[in-house]
Amino acid sequence: MKALVYHGPGNRAYEEKPKPQVQDTTDAVVKITKTTICGTDLHIMKGDVPTVTDGRTLGHEGVGIIEEVGEGVSNFKKGDPVLISCITACGKCDNCKKQMYSHCENGGWILGNTIDGTQAEYVRIPYADTSLYHIPEGADKEALVMLSDILPTGFEVGVLNGKVKPGDVVAIVGAGPIGLAALLTAQFYSPAEIIMVDLDDNRLEASKEFGATKTVNSSDGNAIDKIMELTNNKGVDVSIEAVGIPTTFDICQNIIKAGGHIANVGVHGQSVDLKLEELWVHNITMTTGLVDTYTIPMLMKTLDSGQLEPEQLITHHFELDNIMEAYDTFGNAAEEKALKIILENK
Amino acid sequence: MKALVYHGPGNRAYEEKPKPQVQDTTDAVVKITKTTICGTDLHIMKGDVPTVTDGRTLGHEGVGIIEEVGEGVSNFKKGDPVLISCITACGKCDNCKKQMYSHCENGGWILGNTIDGTQAEYVRIPYADTSLYHIPEGADKEALVMLSDILPTGFEVGVLNGKVKPGDVVAIVGAGPIGLAALLTAQFYSPAEIIMVDLDDNRLEASKEFGATKTVNSSDGNAIDKIMELTNNKGVDVSIEAVGIPTTFDICQNIIKAGGHIANVGVHGQSVDLKLEELWVHNITMTTGLVDTYTIPMLMKTLDSGQLEPEQLITHHFELDNIMEAYDTFGNAAEEKALKIILENK
Repeated sequence: MKALVYHGPGNRAYEEKPKPQVQDTTDAVVKITKTTICGTDLHIMKGDVPTVTDGRTLGHEGVGIIEEVGEGVSNFKKGDPVLISCITACGKCDNCKKQMYSHCENGGWILGNTIDGTQAEYVRIPYADTSLYHIPEGADKEALVMLSDILPTGFEVGVLNGKVKPGDVVAIVGAGPIGLAALLTAQFYSPAEIIMVDLDDNRLEASKEFGATKTVNSSDGNAIDKIMELTNNKGVDVSIEAVGIPTTFDICQNIIKAGGHIANVGVHGQSVDLKLEELWVHNITMTTGLVDTYTIPMLMKTLDSGQLEPEQLITHHFELDNIMEAYDTFGNAAEEKALKIILENK
Repeated sequence: MKALVYHGPGNRAYEEKPKPQVQDTTDAVVKITKTTICGTDLHIMKGDVPTVTDGRTLGHEGVGIIEEVGEGVSNFKKGDPVLISCITACGKCDNCKKQMYSHCENGGWILGNTIDGTQAEYVRIPYADTSLYHIPEGADKEALVMLSDILPTGFEVGVLNGKVKPGDVVAIVGAGPIGLAALLTAQFYSPAEIIMVDLDDNRLEASKEFGATKTVNSSDGNAIDKIMELTNNKGVDVSIEAVGIPTTFDICQNIIKAGGHIANVGVHGQSVDLKLEELWVHNITMTTGLVDTYTIPMLMKTLDSGQLEPEQLITHHFELDNIMEAYDTFGNAAEEKALKIILENK
């Protein structure tokens, strides 16, 4: 079969690899029908994720059809259409029993990281019973690809951790796919205002279409003042950090109201300066987290009822065979106005 | 009347001041019977709290007898024994209606800060109906002084924000009065282990008497390694910061388990380095806060039932007339083995 393979920083190839087989009784092999590229894959390509080694097939998002299951798999059978969670969960360890699948002692984020991933014609999914989801008949499979990672991430780590509630003023710093996923799912809870903050006017325009009530272009370095002005100097109830650098974290900590929530979603490569000399008295709650994907079934229902329309995030389509070109497009996202790219394996 | 008055950094006097009067209809004047000195008062004496100006009577803790009430006070009458909350709450503003009395728009921490406090024969309490608590007949009034500030602080900002639950491993960094208040109240929730961390072996000994299961002397700089060893390298479910310096915050962030809670109680004078490059993926919750004192009625009941014995924290007694000497003793707490000092106004 063909797969997108990492060969060290800056080097990737779409090349022939052996088709994966069931190795453990709890495995399934899935024929990929649709997959996509994540910002994390670009980080990997820069060499930022040392757990990914030469020869690894990338990708941790996708939908497909069950090709084969191990003897221990009871929830799925050959031919079932399935959604793949970016998080592999054994379902048995202490952390799985706390629904903290992200920290599964036998899984977690391993797909396209420490085991071969979904940017291929076939993928092996360990602990299939607890790491795959049935796709309801008639569901839009393309939109479902966004439920492997970015929508549960924006929802769980941004919106739910941030405890967005009716009437709140919410700021989301970063209008990339994850920030937009938070924007879409924050609206489940009817906040009064959602202020989107980004450097890129195109993304801010997209944010308005997706439901942002206000936007702030932060490229002049005055985002904090602008947000305070927009909120009559009261600040926001919830700030969601969806970038992962000290500057954007700093915006979040400077605009938060007493009693507010800072939900960090961004993947950080360095420490940040936490202003405890101001925040100690401020009754704030700050959260961090890798997604557990426990909300995938919930999100499927909102998609079915039309309350969530993740297909809005899809800007580009490629055939899987053209994934090398798709990476180039996604790597140049601002200029290409790319949000999510669907790759189809025909 | 006599009062302990701040006259700029390093200068205090126990001197004659006019007896306070009812100024607003919602005021009460309380004759102090017992009061105490807080670590915050020592910070004020160093000039660390710029809102406190020359001429201010210090103190924000105490019990007493109602001397006089304004026309608008309906909950209290002359002669009632009362506990004074360190937080003044109007009960009417947005923050009070969220039970976030610490950020009352007309009050908050003002006693012994922006208005005259409790280290005096009499004190004026604004918004008496919502800032004073009735003392049940037969209650130990001396122990109740600890309910003005330190016990609700350790409980609300440490234990409740930290979400201590049965079976948890809890570390409390700092075994001063606030850390010990967290230690006493954490036991309401039956954690499996409470590890106390401090520089002072005397305080660690006291911690064991108060229910700590393990202690770590951090003076060699190896507290993190020691705690990881004590927890089989798993870390703790809850870490409570009860000091307020970067070193102790750093211990808290390095020992926390995935999914754990860091509850900051300490008053910080500078920012800290938050290791988001490790914590972003760690599913942690960090909280900060000034006490709201909404748990005073709850704590009174635990005191009455014997589940809480705050009198253990009392190490010294002075008459109010000897408060200058009491400050010297408290300012030399380690050598004097001082935790809380009761000052009595006879």
